[in-house]
Amino acid sequence: MKPLEWINGNVRFLDQTKLPLEEAYIQTDDVAVIAEAIRRLAIRGAPLIGIAAAYGVALASLQVKQNEVNEVRSYLNSTLDILASTRPTAVNLFWALERQRRILDAWQTNFVAELQMRLIDEAFFIHQEDFNMCERICSFGVELLPKSCSILTHCNAGALATGGRGTALGVITKAWEDGKLRHVYIDETRPLLQGARLTAWEMKKENIPATLIVDSTAAVLMKERKIDAVIVGADRIAMNGDVANKVGTYALAVLAKYHGIPFYVAAPVSTIDFRMKTGKEIPIEERDGREVHEIFGKRISPEGIAVYSPAFDVTPNDLITAIVTDQGILHPPLSDALKNLRSQS
Amino acid sequence: MKPLEWINGNVRFLDQTKLPLEEAYIQTDDVAVIAEAIRRLAIRGAPLIGIAAAYGVALASLQVKQNEVNEVRSYLNSTLDILASTRPTAVNLFWALERQRRILDAWQTNFVAELQMRLIDEAFFIHQEDFNMCERICSFGVELLPKSCSILTHCNAGALATGGRGTALGVITKAWEDGKLRHVYIDETRPLLQGARLTAWEMKKENIPATLIVDSTAAVLMKERKIDAVIVGADRIAMNGDVANKVGTYALAVLAKYHGIPFYVAAPVSTIDFRMKTGKEIPIEERDGREVHEIFGKRISPEGIAVYSPAFDVTPNDLITAIVTDQGILHPPLSDALKNLRSQS
Repeated sequence: MKPLEWINGNVRFLDQTKLPLEEAYIQTDDVAVIAEAIRRLAIRGAPLIGIAAAYGVALASLQVKQNEVNEVRSYLNSTLDILASTRPTAVNLFWALERQRRILDAWQTNFVAELQMRLIDEAFFIHQEDFNMCERICSFGVELLPKSCSILTHCNAGALATGGRGTALGVITKAWEDGKLRHVYIDETRPLLQGARLTAWEMKKENIPATLIVDSTAAVLMKERKIDAVIVGADRIAMNGDVANKVGTYALAVLAKYHGIPFYVAAPVSTIDFRMKTGKEIPIEERDGREVHEIFGKRISPEGIAVYSPAFDVTPNDLITAIVTDQGILHPPLSDALKNLRSQS
Repeated sequence: MKPLEWINGNVRFLDQTKLPLEEAYIQTDDVAVIAEAIRRLAIRGAPLIGIAAAYGVALASLQVKQNEVNEVRSYLNSTLDILASTRPTAVNLFWALERQRRILDAWQTNFVAELQMRLIDEAFFIHQEDFNMCERICSFGVELLPKSCSILTHCNAGALATGGRGTALGVITKAWEDGKLRHVYIDETRPLLQGARLTAWEMKKENIPATLIVDSTAAVLMKERKIDAVIVGADRIAMNGDVANKVGTYALAVLAKYHGIPFYVAAPVSTIDFRMKTGKEIPIEERDGREVHEIFGKRISPEGIAVYSPAFDVTPNDLITAIVTDQGILHPPLSDALKNLRSQS
């Protein structure tokens, strides 16, 4: 399943807002369609947003007339700005656009075709790097799992969010391919239901035996000894091993600890914030209360009631059994493992 | 706020299916309307269902012609059967109908007016007993709370479910009246959203400062030291102090223990199953997967994905700080406290 690919000067992508009811692909040669798709969450997941933006710049270079060299430069600069304005927080977006800006800045010749080729190549590289990153994470991660295991996951850190098979969910699909997975349990992940809408869809697509639960039922499954390990992704990792991820992750980590179940985090090294000492420094985005008050635009709560809706929570390092990165597995003490990793990179 | 009351030979009740968006009352002199309201969850909550059924029998006695004594008996017997068939599991329903059946059986005279009066009186008694039970629970419960406290609750164990101010939520409204409550946090309580729909509505109605959260956010609030105590209701209590309650209760109990937060259960003595040794014996109803797959009839998950949806979970006694009953507070060791209670009753 490819949520986004380059086909003969076009980008073809899956409109994720239509999932899980409809599998609708959009093919375009227009960067404005890409920008709008990122803005309205048709393309989502930090790595996939970066890849889409890089291809978007390549599309823009094909839209300009080849003989107007100065206009190429100004058009692409404004395109970079437009793409950068689509989402405020996804670090990968700015990082991918910065790579394309460097290609543009390094362009010395007047051959527009050469610039086009280089931008397309760079987008391919970014996509390929992300694919490889996923493969490495999943190869390392699968080694942690026992035979015939049942795994619980939260939110969506799968193929829909990356340029490869995903991170946390990628470990699960790899375990299935390797014959190590018996079952996957999926937290629906309120309020935005990424587990029910996206992870359940990916599992169905791969024919992996999966069961959807409301988030509160995770504790029941653990008590019934139906979960052998919990695997989640990460949005940011501090240098002491504290992990910010989708709200609900911290509760799962506490519950896993209580039940003696391993709790794994799978994320690329790019998720580690080497400047951040502990998770306490990680800024937590608070979401609009309407995401809790309304489901599909229908009000579920009375008017005038307050909502507290942090998008993420922070899981302290002592609840984490191991962090699986594309450069290997980090074992506790995580602060030492992360220091070693920094000194090597 | 009265979800159900007797007014001059009529029953007036709040249609809870319309909450929280609409506050619609239905007034009727027809027992068939009551039976249908219980069936479609317009009247819900085990104690309130029992009260409604008792008033329903009284309504039926007023519907028959006063001079046809034999027909009165057969009509009321069939009414008792119809009311008993409305909901399969609510123990209070059968208990309340049994009390009215005894009134009918004890009726020796041929004065229909006398029977009518006795059935109305018995319904009043049942209603009043439930009201008093709530008051006693709440008076005991509020003593456990510190000054200026913030409380987390789950599901709905309030005035909407009982003939009084409720059990767990009643303790909260009592604490508010006594000036001890600072804030209440409400778990939305997936899948059926009783917290968002009903508890939030009750708090709004009482002008109690309240914040709605998705169930996963409870752990975040505990970590941020924003919760001083958790109070929940109970569906059944075993003799060792294990408590069955709405799914999500067990997770809250584990999280409260981890964060050193007191975890209280509030329920009448009638909830205690004196024949049941431990929570392991409590049968747990598994709900239809559609309650997870669909919200307001709209599908949120792909076709062909399994769902595991237990309606309740069991919280083991060692996670419970105290059980607040209408006969006093039970402290650990709960099995000893429950044995004492049984020997007294």
